[in-house]
Amino acid sequence: MTARSLGAGSKVALLCHGYTGDTRAKLANTLLRYGKADVVAIVDSACAGQSFDALTGIPTAAPIVATVREAADLGAEILVIAVALLGGQIPPEWRTDLLFAADAGMSIVNPMHVRLEHDDELRSRIREGRWIWDLRVEPEGLQPASGRALGLSIPRILTVGTDMAVGKLTAAIELMRGLEAQGRRVGFVATGQVGICALGRGIPLDGIRVDFAAGAVESEVMRESERADCVLIEGQGAICHPSASANLALIRGSMPTHLLFVHRAGQTRIRSMDWAIIPDLERMIRLYEDIAACAGAFPKPVTFAIALNTAHMSPTEAEDAVRSTETSLGLPTADPIRHGVGKFIAALAPAMTPA
Amino acid sequence: MTARSLGAGSKVALLCHGYTGDTRAKLANTLLRYGKADVVAIVDSACAGQSFDALTGIPTAAPIVATVREAADLGAEILVIAVALLGGQIPPEWRTDLLFAADAGMSIVNPMHVRLEHDDELRSRIREGRWIWDLRVEPEGLQPASGRALGLSIPRILTVGTDMAVGKLTAAIELMRGLEAQGRRVGFVATGQVGICALGRGIPLDGIRVDFAAGAVESEVMRESERADCVLIEGQGAICHPSASANLALIRGSMPTHLLFVHRAGQTRIRSMDWAIIPDLERMIRLYEDIAACAGAFPKPVTFAIALNTAHMSPTEAEDAVRSTETSLGLPTADPIRHGVGKFIAALAPAMTPA
Repeated sequence: MTARSLGAGSKVALLCHGYTGDTRAKLANTLLRYGKADVVAIVDSACAGQSFDALTGIPTAAPIVATVREAADLGAEILVIAVALLGGQIPPEWRTDLLFAADAGMSIVNPMHVRLEHDDELRSRIREGRWIWDLRVEPEGLQPASGRALGLSIPRILTVGTDMAVGKLTAAIELMRGLEAQGRRVGFVATGQVGICALGRGIPLDGIRVDFAAGAVESEVMRESERADCVLIEGQGAICHPSASANLALIRGSMPTHLLFVHRAGQTRIRSMDWAIIPDLERMIRLYEDIAACAGAFPKPVTFAIALNTAHMSPTEAEDAVRSTETSLGLPTADPIRHGVGKFIAALAPAMTPA
Repeated sequence: MTARSLGAGSKVALLCHGYTGDTRAKLANTLLRYGKADVVAIVDSACAGQSFDALTGIPTAAPIVATVREAADLGAEILVIAVALLGGQIPPEWRTDLLFAADAGMSIVNPMHVRLEHDDELRSRIREGRWIWDLRVEPEGLQPASGRALGLSIPRILTVGTDMAVGKLTAAIELMRGLEAQGRRVGFVATGQVGICALGRGIPLDGIRVDFAAGAVESEVMRESERADCVLIEGQGAICHPSASANLALIRGSMPTHLLFVHRAGQTRIRSMDWAIIPDLERMIRLYEDIAACAGAFPKPVTFAIALNTAHMSPTEAEDAVRSTETSLGLPTADPIRHGVGKFIAALAPAMTPA
């Protein structure tokens, strides 16, 4: 196995059967938006021939094809399983695609919990010089957290939100780019397979054992803080999601000074469990702050802005949603994709050292 | 390797070098209090020849010896690494003890994160019919949580607290025994290596990946709820501990109806990090409840009592501590070891179906 990456110039196919346009295809969307690799095809038999741009609003010249064979014919060298499914299992019927990709001489990027490197059949069919990259493997040498991030003098900005896949990573990356455009040196901690894949570094938090979860975050925050004006930390899940429990590790590991609250406009229930109601946003924001401050044991972070995901709305609806959220919560609000991150940067300014 | 257990009749030595009487030797203490195995020796070169009872207040006829050799001479068949250390590593100098135990024909119980089953040298020296039991291995077939525990009609009682090793497991076991003595059918979810070791079942929560942590708790709660009048769940860590992040998984997995708050009387700082201040107890109790209720998304649990650990106090000091805690927090308070669990059971009574 040689070095595994999705660097500039690599030719990638995104495997998305049935999920194109769905928020669970966020790995596909994020690689198209922020990745360095050259995407040559999206593989989705359910919508082959349609326009990815029309289906998602994300511009790309790559066609949607029905099979991995077609992607290989278009020059794909790497097949990325480009969806995030609850529980992290690969749909069994996708195995044919993976075996075909190996036989066709492609490398494979796997964001799921299952270890494809331990799959003897698949591994034996991977050609010399190609590789399997299991993104969700726990790093070596982890330690429990020790509260070290509290000693940092620069802002630690954590994204938190109301559900999985509402746009926490996107908001964080857009904010990073906005700050960098102003000459800021930004540390970034990707904490999920999508961020790792797009940025080439980070930790797969949900694949890390509970005892080391906060420590893994802390260690990345400390490393990223070197020669940085602030550190952005990609959040995971939501405290109101019955399946999600990463927030405490993220909060204790990063000891955040600032929270960017992310919500999908109009959403009132957890998407995969429609009996689970998203709480009143103001109370939820306060709860995140209270958990971080832990009844006074730690400094209380500031929720400095709301990133509102309005991808599913018309421009007018989006404007209305931003205006009403801003009014009701009293916090600067914007859709970072639609409106940019100027409001976020302005709200952060008082905490940053003069540029 | 044959079946691994610490069942009735097995002859056990507890390896505790330097930790006898320390709260980090809680595996030793819990096995002596609640385990079924016959403890033939405690191995601690720092206090060999002294009385374990005098050092800890836990009655046992087993002597403290300096070496594993002496324990073997007393008939020990199983060596238990009987301490819990932050980060779950085995002190390197204990390796000699482990190798000696293997050579002497003993089995080994390992509560740490490191996998002794993967230690070729040690494994090769374990005799036929003996075994290594790595307690902290993630179970197979886990799923993310789905909020199923909310559908249960019986109480789910979770212990929460102010630090690691303050007595959450002890309080839960004592409460289980008290309820059982009244004819109640009690489900019990052990969530750490100590509880698993003492009770023979449970999950090593801190060795489980974040994505499956709440689901592992939920799955045990559902199984234990069958034919039970209530389920007790052993808590882990504390939300004010910079290293600990298991509480959210415990809360979402068990969807508790009742919280038993556990505190070591007089303790004001996290033991292993004396810069970390334990918050005001009343505010901390409210925070646990708020996290569980998540700003109204889930039912709010009742904190029904305080288990106060007074092991380090004189009887008079203990009485004073209980009285002042009860007055200041307005909740039934008792040291379950010193005073029994009558107050806890009385406080729970309104939530239980008539016996």
